[in-house]
Amino acid sequence: MRQTALAAIQFSCSWDREENVATADRLVRQAARAGANVVLTPELFETPYFCAVQNRAFMDLARPIGQHPTIEHFARLAAELGVVIPVSVFERAGTALFNSVVVLDADGKAVGHYRKSHIPQAPGYEEKYYFSPGDTGFKPIDTAYGRLGIAVCWDQWFPEAARSLVLRGADFLLYPTAIGSEPGQPHVDSMEHWRIVMRGHAGANMVPVVAANRIGAETTEGVKMTFYGSSFIADHLGALVAGADRSTEQVIVGSFDLDVCREYREGWGCFRDRRPDLYGALATLDGRSRSDAA
Amino acid sequence: MRQTALAAIQFSCSWDREENVATADRLVRQAARAGANVVLTPELFETPYFCAVQNRAFMDLARPIGQHPTIEHFARLAAELGVVIPVSVFERAGTALFNSVVVLDADGKAVGHYRKSHIPQAPGYEEKYYFSPGDTGFKPIDTAYGRLGIAVCWDQWFPEAARSLVLRGADFLLYPTAIGSEPGQPHVDSMEHWRIVMRGHAGANMVPVVAANRIGAETTEGVKMTFYGSSFIADHLGALVAGADRSTEQVIVGSFDLDVCREYREGWGCFRDRRPDLYGALATLDGRSRSDAA
Repeated sequence: MRQTALAAIQFSCSWDREENVATADRLVRQAARAGANVVLTPELFETPYFCAVQNRAFMDLARPIGQHPTIEHFARLAAELGVVIPVSVFERAGTALFNSVVVLDADGKAVGHYRKSHIPQAPGYEEKYYFSPGDTGFKPIDTAYGRLGIAVCWDQWFPEAARSLVLRGADFLLYPTAIGSEPGQPHVDSMEHWRIVMRGHAGANMVPVVAANRIGAETTEGVKMTFYGSSFIADHLGALVAGADRSTEQVIVGSFDLDVCREYREGWGCFRDRRPDLYGALATLDGRSRSDAA
Repeated sequence: MRQTALAAIQFSCSWDREENVATADRLVRQAARAGANVVLTPELFETPYFCAVQNRAFMDLARPIGQHPTIEHFARLAAELGVVIPVSVFERAGTALFNSVVVLDADGKAVGHYRKSHIPQAPGYEEKYYFSPGDTGFKPIDTAYGRLGIAVCWDQWFPEAARSLVLRGADFLLYPTAIGSEPGQPHVDSMEHWRIVMRGHAGANMVPVVAANRIGAETTEGVKMTFYGSSFIADHLGALVAGADRSTEQVIVGSFDLDVCREYREGWGCFRDRRPDLYGALATLDGRSRSDAA
């Protein structure tokens, strides 16, 4: 039996970095008091979602992982509370900028580092302007509370990412997120679509899934966006076990026996019956595998 | 605009093959009257689900595709009604047996043939005893009413199959199915899990999905199974647009503009942003891609 409690925190983010860190600190503590062993923060919570626009100046927000006061703050908090905290940060690595997550183990040590692989580009989500596509790949990260499968926001739309993480032994999937209205498509509300895709990852891979989103309205250089919260936790069958609303600062927690999930996964037989010999299309962008005769 | 109405029929199956064909015929006609352009039958509807047990004699139920009265029957019906009918059959091909689907176009011509790729094995679902894993791969089939992405039952648990079909141009996904109680795990009711995984495929790939399941209790050589129906149609965002109940003979229909779905898919950008360079794990059974350093 490996009972593990996973939590997501959701809140709104201002241009006051210290205030955002203080809010996250307060909500992580609240999650820990509720029994959480792993507490997920929203994506890039140190600032408003600056990717709403393309502005060179925002590149100066990025910091090297090893000299990052926010990471240091949450490392101390992780050790104090004995919880695992994946922290989403804007990473500068030499000339490259990444949308990254540093995983802080329950003793405060940084045990892993993931760079967002799939980078969106659409009005209001101008991420290709800022971030290089991540080069770390999908590798679970071992912690005191299980093997974390971590990916970031837009990655959540790609079944390949979820599958790869679970194939490599992830016990559960975590998605720090910043999603809301679509400035380019004002009639679109993707919330239910967003949830069902990740609940599908949970069910297809038979692992719990946690998504932490921000809330609130932000206006960046005239671009107004409303983040829809709705952070949630799904179990290994894809059922919703906890869900936040669209606009309230919230902490949600779901507890799972990771051994029961693993036994269910093995008993069901889907991983046994995979057919890599038929998956050539997945290794291409156009679906035409190189071994195709036609 | 390419408005296409997709239907699923669900019914119970007896040991009287002619009766099962007559039932399917009647329900296909009902679906056509309701405006359906494509009508999906349940898996292996000519007989009870004989895979409940391992019995050599049931192998004699398989027939070559070219000499198959049920296929001939539905070819005539497809031409008469002007609808596309994918027919699920037990195929004999020389010494090999497959769990197959033959797609009959709206003029009655057989335009494609798919052999189930992922073969389950569990108490009550003894398919590895009967069927060789299919060798056709995941290739959409062109018809008068769109490019069909067809896969069969257990295939529905594999995101790789759905993704491959859509990467290769499928407009929608169809899953003939036979699923219900688990003789080896009497406490398991997989219905919601089953639906959420396929709704996830719909949402992640942004195509409509149809699943047609059988209903009814069947006892085969002492093994009792109850098939849970719940055939459904999901839209390209994974929302449920039609759902049958667990025990009633039913026809369900959902209508989609396939061009609107395609435009949404392209506009959303997920296919643009795929990272085949990071998907090496998917080409393996153990998640260890050959290019992994560690």
